[in-house]
Amino acid sequence: MTAAHARRRAALAALLPERGVSAVLVTSLVNVRYLTGLASSNAAVLVREDGTATLATDSRYIEMARDLGIDVVEAPDTAGALAVPGAGIEAAGMTVATFRRLGESTEGLVPLEPLAELLRTVKDEEEIDLLRTACAISDQAFTDISGSIRPGVTEREVARILENRMVELGADKIAFESIVAAGENGAIPHHTPTGRELRKGDLVTLDFGADYRGYHADMTRTVSLGEPAAWQREIYDLVAAAQKAGRDALAPGATAKEVDSAARAVIAEAGHAEHFRHGLGHGVGLEIHEEPFLGPSRNGRLEDRVPITVEPGVYLPGQGGVRIEDTLVTRAGGPELLTKTTKELLVL
Amino acid sequence: MTAAHARRRAALAALLPERGVSAVLVTSLVNVRYLTGLASSNAAVLVREDGTATLATDSRYIEMARDLGIDVVEAPDTAGALAVPGAGIEAAGMTVATFRRLGESTEGLVPLEPLAELLRTVKDEEEIDLLRTACAISDQAFTDISGSIRPGVTEREVARILENRMVELGADKIAFESIVAAGENGAIPHHTPTGRELRKGDLVTLDFGADYRGYHADMTRTVSLGEPAAWQREIYDLVAAAQKAGRDALAPGATAKEVDSAARAVIAEAGHAEHFRHGLGHGVGLEIHEEPFLGPSRNGRLEDRVPITVEPGVYLPGQGGVRIEDTLVTRAGGPELLTKTTKELLVL
Repeated sequence: MTAAHARRRAALAALLPERGVSAVLVTSLVNVRYLTGLASSNAAVLVREDGTATLATDSRYIEMARDLGIDVVEAPDTAGALAVPGAGIEAAGMTVATFRRLGESTEGLVPLEPLAELLRTVKDEEEIDLLRTACAISDQAFTDISGSIRPGVTEREVARILENRMVELGADKIAFESIVAAGENGAIPHHTPTGRELRKGDLVTLDFGADYRGYHADMTRTVSLGEPAAWQREIYDLVAAAQKAGRDALAPGATAKEVDSAARAVIAEAGHAEHFRHGLGHGVGLEIHEEPFLGPSRNGRLEDRVPITVEPGVYLPGQGGVRIEDTLVTRAGGPELLTKTTKELLVL
Repeated sequence: MTAAHARRRAALAALLPERGVSAVLVTSLVNVRYLTGLASSNAAVLVREDGTATLATDSRYIEMARDLGIDVVEAPDTAGALAVPGAGIEAAGMTVATFRRLGESTEGLVPLEPLAELLRTVKDEEEIDLLRTACAISDQAFTDISGSIRPGVTEREVARILENRMVELGADKIAFESIVAAGENGAIPHHTPTGRELRKGDLVTLDFGADYRGYHADMTRTVSLGEPAAWQREIYDLVAAAQKAGRDALAPGATAKEVDSAARAVIAEAGHAEHFRHGLGHGVGLEIHEEPFLGPSRNGRLEDRVPITVEPGVYLPGQGGVRIEDTLVTRAGGPELLTKTTKELLVL
């Protein structure tokens, strides 16, 4: 990916003149990875207007850094080693403390709005390939372990079985802490798996994904243990219809608000507006949540080649809930679906 | 833990007058957890000089927040909902972008040095109990899976088996991405497990730990696959002696530099100074790496009841390495060892 990384640095360099800086000090670790290929817990990169760049990292990662075809310096204080007077800094990727410390020895640092994040929104095909693999692993893992989603198994056990299967299938790690929410816990959108045992009559929501080479899959399926009750079937069908409306609205040129609204309207018309209070979706890539975000108060238009989730839910406090989520990529000819597991209600 | 959390908020409030502020806006998520008990990905807490406090979080965590015996507001923009003119903010826990955004509507915000982190260094016995459990799980997992550390198994497989065992034994999750480094990979202090198969003649370094209720265990053992060669035995014994010297130097009142130096001198005297380039250890608690840090250029003195690691290593590039690490707690009568697995060289 060295060529891709150099291309990305050149794209970033091209944004600098109109920001009035001749270099930018990138300290957000995920942006450093995007621009250089180095995955680490301590690194920074200075990208200059002419496209040249210097990467700083500490002794733990220096050998990896030297293989990346970029100028490298070893320093424990990576930002301090690279700061030059008048450079831009990432306002959203640097703490107030670091900014003040750097400012003591380096004059005229300029806080900038997100730039690398801007570039990252639209993925190149190399990135989409990695996401496709991450999603395929997630799909396969869900299929492989669906026999383990049964009465008597705990939420935490299901999460672990699913996560192990993703790693066995080639995930580098899990993309985020899985959610497994059974019965009444399904009403908590961000539930953490507990020792609660699954029971016949539960809806069970599983929100999970694989991380493959730093790229994050994100998918949610809700299954029924035994034949669903009427209310369960009703909210399932409602969420599925809303999710389809959201997917159908995904297109280059559509606004974030329009896409959200397409799904939200379906739920609101059924009288459940108050039971769907989070945004419809979010970009995915090197971060599990990244620009663009889909929500009622989100601005901006979608572009081509933007991987994004569509994940409406209906949550009935104390009773249960349903969420259905795919990762897709915006395409001129209609969205490409990356998570391909069926969205029919699975009765297990 | 509600009483403990209220006590911690009172301790933080007591630090405010001499900083010239009547309230502090805490935005570091780990500090929010420390002060309120809420583990989340979006929360902030305003602690006032009189000891009262308000916690803000979004709809995903609001139900959990309401069970914590603290005033709660629901808001997606948690920092924005709590900012008041003249409040202190955490300079090390807030980005430049957030600080500038809050400053547009709230006057006179005052960047402060770490305060909650200062309190967190010395643990109460409730916290040490949780760490003790985290370390016991880690010890037990290592013992249970040591039969799986054998030729033909890959680094990545060993990591997964070990991590699964920790979760089976009650870990909420793993404390950090495990390191399993075989043979020449052992020369890379922060090696990421690969598909390399373990072979007879390898030293294998395993650096791992359990997270229990947010508290992080951290331990490293290096084992030998088959009888060690003379050079392997030599660096193992050297690191073990250095590690013991470091542990023996741990005492309330000792400086971070003295403890580091006690271990480092042993390695330097054997002519390996250049092969041990990282710090000797670090505090552990709600973060895997936190104050205090032990290193040649670290200032400050240890206090009583400070959980901390001691982890010297010798790394021979291209050849292999050894690291041995315990988590201990400083005590007036001598350090309490939390990770109890033997430090004799295990020949597997």
